[in-house]
Amino acid sequence: MSAGAVVLLSGGLDSSVLLHYVVNTLAHDPVHALSFNYGQRHSRELDCAAYQAGVAGVASHKCMDIGFMGAFLQAGSALIEGGDAVPDLVALDVEARTQPPTYVPNRNMMLLSMAAAYAETLGISHVYYGAQAQDEYGYWDCTAQFLERMNGVLALNRKDAVTVYAPFVARSKAETLRVGLELGVDFAHTWSCYRGLDVACGTCPTCIERLHAFRDCASTDPLPYA
Amino acid sequence: MSAGAVVLLSGGLDSSVLLHYVVNTLAHDPVHALSFNYGQRHSRELDCAAYQAGVAGVASHKCMDIGFMGAFLQAGSALIEGGDAVPDLVALDVEARTQPPTYVPNRNMMLLSMAAAYAETLGISHVYYGAQAQDEYGYWDCTAQFLERMNGVLALNRKDAVTVYAPFVARSKAETLRVGLELGVDFAHTWSCYRGLDVACGTCPTCIERLHAFRDCASTDPLPYA
Repeated sequence: MSAGAVVLLSGGLDSSVLLHYVVNTLAHDPVHALSFNYGQRHSRELDCAAYQAGVAGVASHKCMDIGFMGAFLQAGSALIEGGDAVPDLVALDVEARTQPPTYVPNRNMMLLSMAAAYAETLGISHVYYGAQAQDEYGYWDCTAQFLERMNGVLALNRKDAVTVYAPFVARSKAETLRVGLELGVDFAHTWSCYRGLDVACGTCPTCIERLHAFRDCASTDPLPYA
Repeated sequence: MSAGAVVLLSGGLDSSVLLHYVVNTLAHDPVHALSFNYGQRHSRELDCAAYQAGVAGVASHKCMDIGFMGAFLQAGSALIEGGDAVPDLVALDVEARTQPPTYVPNRNMMLLSMAAAYAETLGISHVYYGAQAQDEYGYWDCTAQFLERMNGVLALNRKDAVTVYAPFVARSKAETLRVGLELGVDFAHTWSCYRGLDVACGTCPTCIERLHAFRDCASTDPLPYA
């Protein structure tokens, strides 16, 4: 096992900060960025992933095309082309930890299992992903407990066990953003909006969270909004 | 949640028996069979899967094409086109629980996570897969403990938790075969050989195991061998 790392990179705010954190702060080398095309409503996010991977100077950036999952799961989620409309505002009951309509069935177990397979093939024991505390309210597969149990499965590997790390899982989006601002991440090339428009909508749950994070950091989001 | 089930069906001996067991003995209804094309060396197995699904009268049989994984993982396994040659005989040290060259990195976590996502989308809580005791010697992801921990992750789902069952995980291949013989499974339409030849080789690890199982059941394998 090398001191290398595989980083899940969606091109969103959290994973973009994570990539620069793993390359610069944790100083893993080599770093392999891994994106997934799973039938997202737009490719804007993946363009941002490619940009960040280039700037970070990773050893490789690959995109696994798992678009076939769309046909299997499209009925299940508003995030996938063909699914329900993305809800207009965060009208979700945070206290009740309700599952939002943007939930993709078992998505993170799928993505992490593929990332772990990829890392194992490369002889790398560290996989990083950008789960953060604020997602806990609705996504059972973004929690620290989920990660702990996933690692409990992976630890059974008798030869080349891979461990998944989520350094931001206990931090709010604002705290993650602050790490990125300190690292000089260019947030004009990160994409959070759930809708497939040319300009970020500013009203979907993730735009709202992002804008709140910038406000909490007394900073300005360089992205234009509709 | 319905009394339906999703069954992972490779077209091999174990999963073919499992399918008929779930349909006839456990009487789940509807039953959805799910196969994966992950760049296996031959498609013979998938033809057998289609045959068994038809005979069992399942509600649906779908095949997820995850061939893209081949490009990512081909260096890692003898089972995937482009990987190392399949070893000629079971020269593996069973006591040492050595990982055989036919191991595909993290395969079962990937397949089960996709099957669980599919079941969740269908509103089905039961997923069945054909792990059996004999595989434990080399595959960490075929053990009862692996299954238990995977279910520990899936149990975190707050809304539509899926559970994976492996009814044959504590049985030998001969015991699984016996279940199939009692259910009248047509083993001429199951495929176990690891090599991509027209006729089963009779010398690869899985051919040997299969032949031993038929011998232990005092039965004859209807498949022709090279």
